[in-house]
Amino acid sequence: MSRSYSDLLEEASKLARVVDHYVLDTAQTYPQKLADASLHLFKAGGKRLRPTITLLAARMLGGLEAEMRAVPLASAVEVAHTFTLIHDDIMDKDEMRRGVPTTHVVYGEDWAILAGDLLHALSFHYIARGVERGLTHEQVYRALKALSDAAIYVSRGQALDMLFEGTWNVGVSDYLNMVRLKTGAMIEAAARLGAIAAGSPKEAEDALGLYGCFTGVAFQIKDDILGVFGDPRVTGKPVYSDLRRGKKTLLVIYAVSEAGRKELVELIGPEAGEDDLRRAAKIIEESGALDYALKTAFRYAEKAREVLSGVDAVDSKAKKLLADLALYSVERDR
Amino acid sequence: MSRSYSDLLEEASKLARVVDHYVLDTAQTYPQKLADASLHLFKAGGKRLRPTITLLAARMLGGLEAEMRAVPLASAVEVAHTFTLIHDDIMDKDEMRRGVPTTHVVYGEDWAILAGDLLHALSFHYIARGVERGLTHEQVYRALKALSDAAIYVSRGQALDMLFEGTWNVGVSDYLNMVRLKTGAMIEAAARLGAIAAGSPKEAEDALGLYGCFTGVAFQIKDDILGVFGDPRVTGKPVYSDLRRGKKTLLVIYAVSEAGRKELVELIGPEAGEDDLRRAAKIIEESGALDYALKTAFRYAEKAREVLSGVDAVDSKAKKLLADLALYSVERDR
Repeated sequence: MSRSYSDLLEEASKLARVVDHYVLDTAQTYPQKLADASLHLFKAGGKRLRPTITLLAARMLGGLEAEMRAVPLASAVEVAHTFTLIHDDIMDKDEMRRGVPTTHVVYGEDWAILAGDLLHALSFHYIARGVERGLTHEQVYRALKALSDAAIYVSRGQALDMLFEGTWNVGVSDYLNMVRLKTGAMIEAAARLGAIAAGSPKEAEDALGLYGCFTGVAFQIKDDILGVFGDPRVTGKPVYSDLRRGKKTLLVIYAVSEAGRKELVELIGPEAGEDDLRRAAKIIEESGALDYALKTAFRYAEKAREVLSGVDAVDSKAKKLLADLALYSVERDR
Repeated sequence: MSRSYSDLLEEASKLARVVDHYVLDTAQTYPQKLADASLHLFKAGGKRLRPTITLLAARMLGGLEAEMRAVPLASAVEVAHTFTLIHDDIMDKDEMRRGVPTTHVVYGEDWAILAGDLLHALSFHYIARGVERGLTHEQVYRALKALSDAAIYVSRGQALDMLFEGTWNVGVSDYLNMVRLKTGAMIEAAARLGAIAAGSPKEAEDALGLYGCFTGVAFQIKDDILGVFGDPRVTGKPVYSDLRRGKKTLLVIYAVSEAGRKELVELIGPEAGEDDLRRAAKIIEESGALDYALKTAFRYAEKAREVLSGVDAVDSKAKKLLADLALYSVERDR
């Protein structure tokens, strides 16, 4: 990494602790198997990027009191994210995440479906619980709107992602639209929730939302890169799974348009062996797709930082960390 | 049926139309396949019992204006219910419902999971949209709390239902607890949402909630009866599916305690043939379990009517229809 993110990572790990406590305190339920399945992936770790954004946005716009009010909302967005991971792993047949077997591998598909459903419901329950921390009913309403919009967009994004597996007729703008929905929307909601907890006017909420959306697109492009060129011991998930599934990542879309469709098409897909996939990765790299995707990700991170710079902050340190976070989402290696 | 429900059924079909319009107007989404999968079961029909309760409760407590304000909330509870059916059908491997193949049979499990997730998100989106009809932010907050609590309880109930499949150590009180969560909670929410839309005080909301919970238990016991003794051409779903899955319905729990475990245990389960299941149904009937279950269902319907009778009504016709509905949920044959 070209710069140090030690301040950001230290702060994020403190904020993650707060969210972990809130969730583990409130998500315990019965029957035990349901609690275990629901919290399996949550307890395995994760970057807690989304709740970190919520809490930093709240502090940036409203100081420490706003950050405290935002804890249930930050927890809501993290459990909502966890729910989508559990269900997506079933649909994408992914077997490892965060260094552990995925929920459906450990508990079976039925329990993984149900565990995701519980977390989905819990995320909205947490929004309502914002009043316990002093959120007004109007703030709860705005938070409900932000999170339910995001949950709808994420479903649409996942649907497009699945449909794209079956076609080569996917362009860069199709990809960006899909990624804005699948990943951008929930990170947008994370940032909005922080602004809402701070009692910010709609314009500031919208600006933070845009920051989140751009950061989310940058994050997803980097995620796709790590899915082909990442180190599984660092990322906690296997490489090439996207290539096997025929996912239309920015890498694949660019490589196919540059290196020619035929050669790559023959190397990737559900029947491809490890050697085929390694060769495909090489073709992708040599086509310039890796460079192109990284540049695109940085461009989105810069757009996020630009939007953010135009928003007045009560806490300028939190604002600086959010700006760092946009870049970190591209520079990270896990 | 021992009494006429023509007033109720006529009213319910009018109210269902209102909800159908609201949902079909707002749930259309893209990509098309996601919209199709999400609305497949909804369009196949259904009794629309839950939204009918919401709208009648709103009118009973607040007149026609309250009923109009309640439409998004009534729609929320119906799409939430549809979401649980879609996911439960995957978990229970049920292949027919409402006279059509279930969502996962038509669209595959991945799309059925996603369709359910979209409807789940949509149900909370509808709560937020209550403000468009004039609900205050406080009412939206109360509605959010009611629906998210219910969604959590339904997950717990489904988890217990699944766990009970693997054991014979399930008593009547375990069953009633499970059913209160799995079915009672969402019908309780339906009734609460009506009271909330009417701007009723918490006590009236709680009383309506109790009416809904009791009605829900009565409804589920009858549902279990129809699952063994119903006419598939009328119910739209196959008989004996619960027996095959080893579901611990009130019928089975009672029959096992009366007729002895061994004979029945050998006749039901995933490997049972049609003849075994027919014999099991006969044993259940002869054990007195059918009588017992029906009586229990009627007792809950009566409890629902009793609670309801103690609540003051603005519209006594709506109150009368809600009282009828509690009984109808046991007397229905579909």
